[in-house]
Amino acid sequence: MKLYDCKMAPNPRRVRIFIAEKGLQIPAVEVSIVDGENLKPEYLKVNPRGLLPVLELDDGTRLDETQAICRYLEETHPEPNLMGRTTLERAQIESWQRHMEFDGMTAVSEVVRNSIPAFKSRGLPGVTQPVAAIPALVERGTQSVKRFYDRLEQRLKESEYVGGNRFSIADITALCVVDVAKNRINLPIPADNKQTQRWYEAVSARTSAKV
Amino acid sequence: MKLYDCKMAPNPRRVRIFIAEKGLQIPAVEVSIVDGENLKPEYLKVNPRGLLPVLELDDGTRLDETQAICRYLEETHPEPNLMGRTTLERAQIESWQRHMEFDGMTAVSEVVRNSIPAFKSRGLPGVTQPVAAIPALVERGTQSVKRFYDRLEQRLKESEYVGGNRFSIADITALCVVDVAKNRINLPIPADNKQTQRWYEAVSARTSAKV
Repeated sequence: MKLYDCKMAPNPRRVRIFIAEKGLQIPAVEVSIVDGENLKPEYLKVNPRGLLPVLELDDGTRLDETQAICRYLEETHPEPNLMGRTTLERAQIESWQRHMEFDGMTAVSEVVRNSIPAFKSRGLPGVTQPVAAIPALVERGTQSVKRFYDRLEQRLKESEYVGGNRFSIADITALCVVDVAKNRINLPIPADNKQTQRWYEAVSARTSAKV
Repeated sequence: MKLYDCKMAPNPRRVRIFIAEKGLQIPAVEVSIVDGENLKPEYLKVNPRGLLPVLELDDGTRLDETQAICRYLEETHPEPNLMGRTTLERAQIESWQRHMEFDGMTAVSEVVRNSIPAFKSRGLPGVTQPVAAIPALVERGTQSVKRFYDRLEQRLKESEYVGGNRFSIADITALCVVDVAKNRINLPIPADNKQTQRWYEAVSARTSAKV
């Protein structure tokens, strides 16, 4: 297998953490999104959608979409389990994972794509035509990141981890959101969100978080 | 089981079609998003996120998020299969399903939420505070719907259905996107997109599409 990767981007990192949690070693090919390598003809041959990550299987089949790649790895390498052991747990973890994408990943992307100079005319990911930044989205996205933090704190008051009482793919998504918010757009975890601080310390200390 | 539903909204419809394809009968409770019933205290007790659909199990457990609900139903009622029979097929269908959400559902929502008067100060779903419409998103969303149609046509040139050679959850998402585009924001399938027309005729003719 081979992973088309981008070190600074949150979605490839979600897959890298997932791979590290599974104890797998998968060689990576770096494709820089900031430098626009993902929109050049060479990479568009790999993924016509211009997005990362992509997992290439040994027979050349390529899978894109973070969740689909993780599901493939979960089924082919079931332990440690990261997506649920029973039907109900799988549905609940999937739901929390999606909350983290919808509340968090969408919000931080809205801010990043409309405020960081490298994305000036690249307001939407994977689009080769220019897409102008929309300044109003920076404010809207910032408010959405605050709502993400409120909801995450609420969840972590009632649950040790995002998806339930153990580490799962939902924590991976949440961690990648928080690190983009903190490191790229200066929206760290609010000081009063004690449960989120407690959780962040625990998930960041895992070896997998270093990738 | 019980489904918290909204007749005019695309995500509840995805679940209704899925249920119809499985041949299940699940009683529904209508919650009108246009009238803002989803943001009233009564419904926020059901789903604090204010979103639809929600599936309530017989023991009172509630599942939200369309994909999580569908996965629960797929595992508890495996036939007819709608999410893939093998590990690879499951990953591929999941990837195509996500493309339809990312390219299509996000794009039509962007137009709907920023142009339809009922959503004037409800620019984001499930948010109780006012979120002002951003006019620039109507144009950006319209361009994204066009890209969705281009990519869908491309896909359907090489594949009978969106997820592969048979009907799957990816077709359900795509159908719900096309119907919102066509009926709510006047962006029907372009006349030249013959493969999409062929596919749309086939999937719309299914009994499940009537829901």
